[in-house]
Amino acid sequence: MDKKDHKLLYVPGPVEVKEDVREACAKPMIGHRTGDFRKLYASIKPKLKKLLYTENAVMVSTSSGSGFMEAAVKNLVGKKVLNCVNGAFSKKWYDIAVACGKPAEKLEVEWGKAVKPDMIDAKLKTGGFDAVCVTHNETSTGVMNNLGEISEVVKKYPDVMFLVDAVSSMGGVKIEVDKLGIDMCLASSQKAFALPPGIAFASVSERAFKKAGTIPGRGYYFDLVELRKAYDKDETPYTPAVSLMYGLDHQLDKFFKEGLDARWERHKRLAKTTRDWAGRMGFQIFPEPGYESITITCIVDTKGMDLKKMQEMMGEKGFSVDKGYRKLNEDLAAKGKKLTFRIPHMGDTSDGDLSDLLKAFEEVIKVL
Amino acid sequence: MDKKDHKLLYVPGPVEVKEDVREACAKPMIGHRTGDFRKLYASIKPKLKKLLYTENAVMVSTSSGSGFMEAAVKNLVGKKVLNCVNGAFSKKWYDIAVACGKPAEKLEVEWGKAVKPDMIDAKLKTGGFDAVCVTHNETSTGVMNNLGEISEVVKKYPDVMFLVDAVSSMGGVKIEVDKLGIDMCLASSQKAFALPPGIAFASVSERAFKKAGTIPGRGYYFDLVELRKAYDKDETPYTPAVSLMYGLDHQLDKFFKEGLDARWERHKRLAKTTRDWAGRMGFQIFPEPGYESITITCIVDTKGMDLKKMQEMMGEKGFSVDKGYRKLNEDLAAKGKKLTFRIPHMGDTSDGDLSDLLKAFEEVIKVL
Repeated sequence: MDKKDHKLLYVPGPVEVKEDVREACAKPMIGHRTGDFRKLYASIKPKLKKLLYTENAVMVSTSSGSGFMEAAVKNLVGKKVLNCVNGAFSKKWYDIAVACGKPAEKLEVEWGKAVKPDMIDAKLKTGGFDAVCVTHNETSTGVMNNLGEISEVVKKYPDVMFLVDAVSSMGGVKIEVDKLGIDMCLASSQKAFALPPGIAFASVSERAFKKAGTIPGRGYYFDLVELRKAYDKDETPYTPAVSLMYGLDHQLDKFFKEGLDARWERHKRLAKTTRDWAGRMGFQIFPEPGYESITITCIVDTKGMDLKKMQEMMGEKGFSVDKGYRKLNEDLAAKGKKLTFRIPHMGDTSDGDLSDLLKAFEEVIKVL
Repeated sequence: MDKKDHKLLYVPGPVEVKEDVREACAKPMIGHRTGDFRKLYASIKPKLKKLLYTENAVMVSTSSGSGFMEAAVKNLVGKKVLNCVNGAFSKKWYDIAVACGKPAEKLEVEWGKAVKPDMIDAKLKTGGFDAVCVTHNETSTGVMNNLGEISEVVKKYPDVMFLVDAVSSMGGVKIEVDKLGIDMCLASSQKAFALPPGIAFASVSERAFKKAGTIPGRGYYFDLVELRKAYDKDETPYTPAVSLMYGLDHQLDKFFKEGLDARWERHKRLAKTTRDWAGRMGFQIFPEPGYESITITCIVDTKGMDLKKMQEMMGEKGFSVDKGYRKLNEDLAAKGKKLTFRIPHMGDTSDGDLSDLLKAFEEVIKVL
C-alpha cells in the first residue's frame, strides 16, 4: 500500500509521515477518562517541555495550529495586539484577531523580508499594546524571523504578551521558550513533528494563564483556563485525538533518541544543502539574506520554468511537491517578477531523502 | 500488540475501534490542498448526507463534538437560546452558550427523564428565543429524547433554529435530518461511528448558513461561513485531521455495506438484549420507560454492588467498562438512592461481542 500509489510528500505540510509513526497512531483505543490516558498525557508533557526548554505548561489541543492562534488572541489580548505581518500566515493571525473582535494593528513588512526588532520597538513605543504576535517561520515566503533579537525588544515591555506561531519551525529548530520569554509558543503536528495533522501544541506561561482568567469572552473550546485545569490532572476538557497523541509520544521519543542538538544540526544541514543546491542550479533564494528558514527553502525560479509542469513531472517521479504559495506568486506575477517554489526539509527528512528529492528536481529541471 | 495488553473498550466513548479502521487511518499522508484530499472529502460528503437523510451540507471539523456545539451557539444564536437540560451533556451545551456570552435559558428536567415536546412548547411560547438546543441521547443517563415529537413543536416556531447534539446517537440511530427540520445536527467520531476521537460532523441547513452570516463574533475556527466556503471546494479552511478522515470514509463504506436499515435494527436489537439481560439479572433501567437509549443502557444497580470493584474485575477479564457517570452517581448517593452503571452498545459492536461482554458481567456480578 505504501509505495505503489503514494507520492512522497514534500509539500510544506503536511509532510511525509513514516510508517512507524502511522503504526503508533494505530494502536488500540483507550478511554480518555482512564488511567491509561492520563499515563499517556503524563508521558508527553515533560517531553514537550524538554523540546521547548521550558518549565511552562505545554498543552495539546485537538485542532489545527489555527485553533491555538485563536486561543492566543482570545485569551491573552485585552487591549490591543500588534501583528507582525510578513507573509500569509502572519497575516492570518491578524485576520483571526479581527474575527475575534480584538483591536489589532499590523506591522507590515514586505513579503520575503524579516520583521526587525527596531520595527517592533517603534510600534510598541506608541503604547496601548498588551500583546505582540510573531510568526517565527513564514511558511509562505521561507523567511525565519530572529526570535532572539525580537525577544530582547519585547522584554522591554513587561505588560506585553509575547505570542509566537512556531507552526513550521517547532520540532525542527531550537526554540528556548523560557530564555526568550515567550508567553505562548504554538505549533501543529503536521510540520516539523512529522505527524498526521489534527493536533496542536502550545507552551503557556504562568503569567499568561493568570491574564487569561481576567479576559472575558474566551469562549469554550479554546479557553486556556479550562484547558489548564484539565492539564493539571493529565486530562483534556473534552475528548482528545488519542490516536494522534500516541503518535506524538512515539515521535518525541525518536526526537530524544536522535538527540535534540543533532536534530537541530540536521535541520540546519538540510537547509544549507538545499540552498547550496539551489545556488549551483542557478536559482536565487527568495528570503532576505540572513533570514533563510531552516525548515523550508523558498526559491526564486530565475529560469522562468512552468512550475505546474514541474509539479506534475515531480509527481510522475513519485514526489508530491509545491509550486509556490499562490498568493505570493500572484503578487510577484502582477509586479512582473519571477515566481517562487518551496522545498521543505523538516521532520523526519534525512540527508539521503533530501538527496533523492533534489536529484529528481534536477532531472525534471533539465527537461524543462 | 492488539490482544495482549489491550482491554476491549466498553466505556461510553471512545468505543472500541476495529483493526481495519485503525489501518485505514494509517494510510500514507497526503497534502490537504491537493486533488487527493479533495477527492477524499468529496467521497465522504454524499455518504454523510445519505446517513442523515439530508440535502444539507454535512461538514467535518477537526475537533471534538464540543467544538461544533460551540459553533452552533456562536453562529446561530442571535437573541436567546433555550437549552433543554436533562443530563450532563445537555447541561454542558448550556455552559458553552454562557461561556460564549449568549443569552441562554435552561429548561431543566430531572436526570433520567426525557424532555417532552409540551415543555419546550411552553417555554418557546414565552417568546424571545431564536434557537433551541436538544441533546438527542443523554450519554450520562441513557435517556434518548424523542426527536420526532420535539420537531413537531419546534416547527411551530419558524424563527427558532433547531440544534441537535447527536454525539452518541448519530451513526447508530436513524436521524432523518430533513424530515425533522434540524438546522444543525452534530456528532463526533468516537461514539457510534466507532472511529478514533478527533473529528466531528455536522449537517447545517441553508437557512442556518444564511443566519450565521448575520451573527457577529463568530470567531475564526468555528465560523460556519468560512467552513462552508471551503466545503464547497471540497476543502477545509485549515489543515484537517486527514488520517481520521481516511478512517471515516472507510467506516461509512462499511455502514452502507451493512445497510442503514440493518444498522439501525442491530442497534435496537443490542439495546433490547441489554435491557432484557438487565431485567433477568434483577436490575432496573434508569431512564423513564419509553425513552431508553438505543446506543447505551443506563442500569440501576439494585444489588448495591461495589461498582469500582466491578470495573476492576471486568478489567481483569479484558473489558474496560463504566462505573456510572460520576456527577449522576454523586447526586443519587446524596439522595440515598441506588447508583447506576452504563453499558454502551454502539458502533461496530456485534450480537456476539455484546454476548461476550454480558457473560463477563454475569460472572463478575455473581462473585460480587
